[in-house]
Amino acid sequence: MLPAQQGYDRAITVFSPDGRLYQVEYAIETVRRGTIAVGVKCKDGIVIAVEEKPRKLQISNTAQKIFQIDDHVGVAAAGYIPDARSQVDNARFFSQSNKMIYDEPVEVETIAKHLADQSQQYTQYAGVRPLGVALILGGVVSGKPQLFLTDPSGTYISYDAIAIGSGSDQVTDFLEKTYKNDLSIDEASALASAGIYLSSEEKEGTSHIRMAHIKTDSGLYEIVSDEQVANYANAAKEKYPHDKN
Amino acid sequence: MLPAQQGYDRAITVFSPDGRLYQVEYAIETVRRGTIAVGVKCKDGIVIAVEEKPRKLQISNTAQKIFQIDDHVGVAAAGYIPDARSQVDNARFFSQSNKMIYDEPVEVETIAKHLADQSQQYTQYAGVRPLGVALILGGVVSGKPQLFLTDPSGTYISYDAIAIGSGSDQVTDFLEKTYKNDLSIDEASALASAGIYLSSEEKEGTSHIRMAHIKTDSGLYEIVSDEQVANYANAAKEKYPHDKN
Amino acid sequence: MLPAQQGYDRAITVFSPDGRLYQVEYAIETVRRGTIAVGVKCKDGIVIAVEEKPRKLQISNTAQKIFQIDDHVGVAAAGYIPDARSQVDNARFFSQSNKMIYDEPVEVETIAKHLADQSQQYTQYAGVRPLGVALILGGVVSGKPQLFLTDPSGTYISYDAIAIGSGSDQVTDFLEKTYKNDLSIDEASALASAGIYLSSEEKEGTSHIRMAHIKTDSGLYEIVSDEQVANYANAAKEKYPHDKN
Amino acid sequence: MLPAQQGYDRAITVFSPDGRLYQVEYAIETVRRGTIAVGVKCKDGIVIAVEEKPRKLQISNTAQKIFQIDDHVGVAAAGYIPDARSQVDNARFFSQSNKMIYDEPVEVETIAKHLADQSQQYTQYAGVRPLGVALILGGVVSGKPQLFLTDPSGTYISYDAIAIGSGSDQVTDFLEKTYKNDLSIDEASALASAGIYLSSEEKEGTSHIRMAHIKTDSGLYEIVSDEQVANYANAAKEKYPHDKN
Amino acid sequence: MLPAQQGYDRAITVFSPDGRLYQVEYAIETVRRGTIAVGVKCKDGIVIAVEEKPRKLQISNTAQKIFQIDDHVGVAAAGYIPDARSQVDNARFFSQSNKMIYDEPVEVETIAKHLADQSQQYTQYAGVRPLGVALILGGVVSGKPQLFLTDPSGTYISYDAIAIGSGSDQVTDFLEKTYKNDLSIDEASALASAGIYLSSEEKEGTSHIRMAHIKTDSGLYEIVSDEQVANYANAAKEKYPHDKN
Amino acid sequence: MLPAQQGYDRAITVFSPDGRLYQVEYAIETVRRGTIAVGVKCKDGIVIAVEEKPRKLQISNTAQKIFQIDDHVGVAAAGYIPDARSQVDNARFFSQSNKMIYDEPVEVETIAKHLADQSQQYTQYAGVRPLGVALILGGVVSGKPQLFLTDPSGTYISYDAIAIGSGSDQVTDFLEKTYKNDLSIDEASALASAGIYLSSEEKEGTSHIRMAHIKTDSGLYEIVSDEQVANYANAAKEKYPHDKN
Amino acid sequence: MLPAQQGYDRAITVFSPDGRLYQVEYAIETVRRGTIAVGVKCKDGIVIAVEEKPRKLQISNTAQKIFQIDDHVGVAAAGYIPDARSQVDNARFFSQSNKMIYDEPVEVETIAKHLADQSQQYTQYAGVRPLGVALILGGVVSGKPQLFLTDPSGTYISYDAIAIGSGSDQVTDFLEKTYKNDLSIDEASALASAGIYLSSEEKEGTSHIRMAHIKTDSGLYEIVSDEQVANYANAAKEKYPHDKN
Repeated sequence: MLPAQQGYDRAITVFSPDGRLYQVEYAIETVRRGTIAVGVKCKDGIVIAVEEKPRKLQISNTAQKIFQIDDHVGVAAAGYIPDARSQVDNARFFSQSNKMIYDEPVEVETIAKHLADQSQQYTQYAGVRPLGVALILGGVVSGKPQLFLTDPSGTYISYDAIAIGSGSDQVTDFLEKTYKNDLSIDEASALASAGIYLSSEEKEGTSHIRMAHIKTDSGLYEIVSDEQVANYANAAKEKYPHDKN
Repeated sequence: MLPAQQGYDRAITVFSPDGRLYQVEYAIETVRRGTIAVGVKCKDGIVIAVEEKPRKLQISNTAQKIFQIDDHVGVAAAGYIPDARSQVDNARFFSQSNKMIYDEPVEVETIAKHLADQSQQYTQYAGVRPLGVALILGGVVSGKPQLFLTDPSGTYISYDAIAIGSGSDQVTDFLEKTYKNDLSIDEASALASAGIYLSSEEKEGTSHIRMAHIKTDSGLYEIVSDEQVANYANAAKEKYPHDKN
Repeated sequence: MLPAQQGYDRAITVFSPDGRLYQVEYAIETVRRGTIAVGVKCKDGIVIAVEEKPRKLQISNTAQKIFQIDDHVGVAAAGYIPDARSQVDNARFFSQSNKMIYDEPVEVETIAKHLADQSQQYTQYAGVRPLGVALILGGVVSGKPQLFLTDPSGTYISYDAIAIGSGSDQVTDFLEKTYKNDLSIDEASALASAGIYLSSEEKEGTSHIRMAHIKTDSGLYEIVSDEQVANYANAAKEKYPHDKN
Repeated sequence: MLPAQQGYDRAITVFSPDGRLYQVEYAIETVRRGTIAVGVKCKDGIVIAVEEKPRKLQISNTAQKIFQIDDHVGVAAAGYIPDARSQVDNARFFSQSNKMIYDEPVEVETIAKHLADQSQQYTQYAGVRPLGVALILGGVVSGKPQLFLTDPSGTYISYDAIAIGSGSDQVTDFLEKTYKNDLSIDEASALASAGIYLSSEEKEGTSHIRMAHIKTDSGLYEIVSDEQVANYANAAKEKYPHDKN
Repeated sequence: MLPAQQGYDRAITVFSPDGRLYQVEYAIETVRRGTIAVGVKCKDGIVIAVEEKPRKLQISNTAQKIFQIDDHVGVAAAGYIPDARSQVDNARFFSQSNKMIYDEPVEVETIAKHLADQSQQYTQYAGVRPLGVALILGGVVSGKPQLFLTDPSGTYISYDAIAIGSGSDQVTDFLEKTYKNDLSIDEASALASAGIYLSSEEKEGTSHIRMAHIKTDSGLYEIVSDEQVANYANAAKEKYPHDKN
Repeated sequence: MLPAQQGYDRAITVFSPDGRLYQVEYAIETVRRGTIAVGVKCKDGIVIAVEEKPRKLQISNTAQKIFQIDDHVGVAAAGYIPDARSQVDNARFFSQSNKMIYDEPVEVETIAKHLADQSQQYTQYAGVRPLGVALILGGVVSGKPQLFLTDPSGTYISYDAIAIGSGSDQVTDFLEKTYKNDLSIDEASALASAGIYLSSEEKEGTSHIRMAHIKTDSGLYEIVSDEQVANYANAAKEKYPHDKN
Repeated sequence: MLPAQQGYDRAITVFSPDGRLYQVEYAIETVRRGTIAVGVKCKDGIVIAVEEKPRKLQISNTAQKIFQIDDHVGVAAAGYIPDARSQVDNARFFSQSNKMIYDEPVEVETIAKHLADQSQQYTQYAGVRPLGVALILGGVVSGKPQLFLTDPSGTYISYDAIAIGSGSDQVTDFLEKTYKNDLSIDEASALASAGIYLSSEEKEGTSHIRMAHIKTDSGLYEIVSDEQVANYANAAKEKYPHDKN
């Protein structure tokens, strides 16, 4: 127990002399400590995928890091997962309210902005800490795939493909090098799998990969079956062998 | 009295530079200091069991660490027990409200999520400390056994079998090695007893073991009698002799 | 005045790195600094007794550490007595409300849980310190004696016999060795007296012992007269001579 | 200005590791720094007396440390006098309310408990400091004299005779040695004067002694005239010459 | 900038180990740093006087340290003058309310107690600092002159003559030596002037002296003209030449 | 970054041992760091003037440090200008409210007292810092010019001529030496310009001087044109050449 | 992790001994750390431009640092962008409310003052940190272009041309040297581009420049197409070659 740690047990979010918000940066560090999450937009829809490392007797039909928000929107999370659940509940309620008011599915960007606005508030007001989680929101509205990232600072940005969590810098580099606009959803799923292999300590097997699709034709969020994940993983190993970036 | 302890008497929950929430980690340490609690799911229902170390004149018909939530749900707790009681009261009220609104027994996962959401809030807002307790919630709904774990971070996870409290890493390893899906409730009860023996300083006798069943046929929470606990304990000693993992 | 004491003048209740709530432990230390209080359950009812050390001109017909809660319930306290008075007022009000709502005497356990729940809250929320007192609640409901202990942590436990305050570990050991289930109320009163002698610096005289009975036949709280206390004290000295445990 | 004093400018009331509430103990120290106040109960009523050290041009017909609460109740204070005034106002209002509700004079103990309960609250909740004053409440109800002490901890105790403030330990010892139950009010007044002489630096004169009586026959609070105080003081010097305890 | 000063930028009012309220003592130090203010009661009324040191171009028809409260009451202040103004506004409102409710002029003591009660509150509750000002309140009610002092501690005391502010100990000593009960208002005014000369660095001239009278015959507050002040000052120099106490 | 600065990032306003309110003194230091502002009262009205140092492309028709409050009142500010704007808005609203209630133009002193009262509150209550600005309020009511100063302490004082901000001690000395009661508004404007030259680094040109008049004949606030300012500046240089005080 | 940083994790905004508000200065440092933003007013309207450095797969049709407020007003931001978004939402709502109340487009200065007032509040009250962003607001009202700057201190100032963010001192110098009042909107756009090149590490390409126009003829905010930005950038390189200031 070092004395230097005392300060971090009692802070509220304020500026440092060099203009940084340490609490926000520490919260982003929490995201970096989480397992990898990947989102890929393709011509047929959206792929989101996460690494989960369940204990042997953990029952995996309740996903921990991948969530459905609405019929047409899903989320992959990295960081402090209880915070992710809090934002997911918020997003679900927001999405339903929006549908009731406007009688049409909510845009993914609208949800992303709503969650990011909340995150910004948590960095500005006393009595609450910033959220320790980043989210990749993916969805299909009017047949168009949309992919957004939110983080603890209150930023939201749209990407074609992005990774968050442990090793995300390396994985995002990999995505930038290999991503193409005309990927099919199967190719995008293989790409996402390859991204997870790149970060994960598990270089074999697929039990640590969880994935969801929102396809442009149906416009519906669906969990990808373990068998199908295995297929994508095999395709990934073939197409991106020994990829170390 | 070391100066270094001063800091821990006045903190609210904030991030450390390496992205950790120390207050949450300290609360989880409180769980690790509690006596062992075990939950096992089997084909006939759920077994939850705890170690209690009563003083000689303590009257044991009021259990300290094992609680009924509803007709069909029970809880085994490890950590700061007054906090467990607070969550149990919350769960009982939530369960009754749910039944009144939906006119059917509440899912165990629904309770687990409710308690975990509350725990997450206690890690995010000032003016309150995180809860210092982990809970194993077990129940039977529509004839299906369900087993969940909640902890101070606000996480909830479903398991086939899990242990919390002092020595829980070792006991969970043991459960992972010996657990089988087709256990009968008697076998599961012996397994849970063996888990408690593994952690406890008491290697003989059964007065320190308290157990409850929720069987799939009745769907009702029932305390296991001391005689029956003794039987399970004997079976445990026979089947898992000198088990040191 | 040591610098190390500064920290204790400004804390709220939070976890230490080893998972302890120091403020609660310090409050329990306050209980240990109080004079001894003893409760004994027997076949004819409940005996509660405390040591009081009045100044010479103090008028003792207002007891400081032993209180009536309701017709059928009393309390013996150890620790910070103004806090005890606060809990006693709370218990009296709770007991009366309960009687008005359910039209029957409240269970002793119900009171104990109510007070313990309040104590737990005082360990979890900012803006208030934990209570610095432990209570032995004794009463008779439907002809059955009931004895409970509450402490600053928010714990409540039922005992056949228990001691709190200065020297309580030694006295509880003594009670565990000598307690029998079939004690009469006179025997139990002698036993309680012996417990107080064991802890007290006063080895002679009885002016420092105050005692109350709730007998199963009447079900009523009654203060034991000084004469009768003297009889019990003499019996104690005879039966447990020079008892050093 | 020593660094060690910094801590005392910002504390709220919490427990120290040895189970003490320092803020309460410091407040009691404030009482010990105040000038002496004495209360004596006798067969004819109550005597309360204080030492006041007015500046030469101070007008003494407004007493600073002795107050009337109601027709039949008075108070002598030691410590931080503005706090005493706050409690006196509280007591006056409480006493009048009580009379209006129950249509009979309030018991002195009822007032003492009310003030002590308030003091206890000030030791438990944040945002307020404990009161820095002890009070001797004396009064006559139904022809019976009653004398109570309250202090910053929230304690209240009944005494035959008691002293508070500077040198109160020595004066209380003196009272314990010389007090008799059958004192007349004149003898009690001389005794109280002797107590004040014992503590005061003024060994001659009576201008620093202020006294009030509540006699059993009238049941009314009355200020004792300066002449009469001088008589009591002379009697004290005669009866307890050179008393050094 | 010494580190030792850091503590004083963040304190609330609490007790020190030796039973002192430092914030109150520091506030009284603020009073001692203010320029001298004097009040003298005489057979014809009340004299209050202050020293003001205006800059050369300051317009002195708005007094800074001497205020009218009501037709019959005035105030002389020493210390942090913005706080004085706050109390003066409070007193004016209180005085008017009182007159409307009781249809007679308010007693000076009633105002003094009201202001002192407010000051006491500011020493007890968090979120506010004590007031840094002492006030001499003078007035005439029913033909009788009344003079009171209030200070940051919440104390109020009646005097025949009193001084506050820089050098007030010396000036009060002087007043005690020279004051007589049968002073005329002119003699009292000369005495007050002498008191100010004693403290002030200005030993000549009268532009730094401001004075008000409340005479018993009219019962009205009136500012003393500069010419008249000069007369009193000359009388003072004649009667108390080179007075160094 | 010196450790000694840490304390100033977290203080509320409290007394130091020598009776000073550091936060108020620091706020006054903020005023001293601002550019110079000058106010001069003369027989024909009021002159207020400030130095502004705009960047080259700054558009100067929105003044930063000189404001109109009402038809007949203006303000010149020095210190933390956003705080000045906050007080100006407050004053405008107060002035309009006053006019609506009393149906006549508000006195300048009434506004000055209102703003000073607010400033005093900001030095006494927690949760807000003192205002970092001083204001010179000038106006004409019933044909009479009025000039007031308010500062962070909550003081307000009337002057014939006054300067605030950087170098204000020197400029006020200069004003005291040269001010005459019978100045015309043109002479007063030249005097104010000379005051600004004395403090400013700009010894040539007039683009850094901004000025407003409230003349007794019209009773209206009017900005002085740049040409007219140049005339006054030239007159100043002629009349007070090389003035170094 | 240096101990000296501990202080910055817990401060509220208060004055330092030299009269500075560190939290505000740190927030302004945050602005200086942001990428460059430029605003230029010209005879045909307003140009605002920012540098954005998107990752390769970031989708740039959602601008991060340039926003539309109303039909006729836009904003370019530098600093902590989530705070910018919060102010933009505020401005949009304010602008709409204004239009509904007054039935005409809101003045740009009115918005600037509204945002600056909010920023000032965030520097004065506890429980919230200052905003870490500066904004350049540009718009056209009644055919006249208007350009304003707001910053974390709560200041707002009108400029012909201004830059904020990294390297803004150098860029503003450049603008001051080259700006002419009779620029066409094309010339102003080239000038703004040159300003961004001056600050940016990217000396080639135009993908990092985002620009918006509000022209005097239409009075409407419009995003400048990437092609057109490229034209302006080429013009900038030609007109201001190798400009190093």
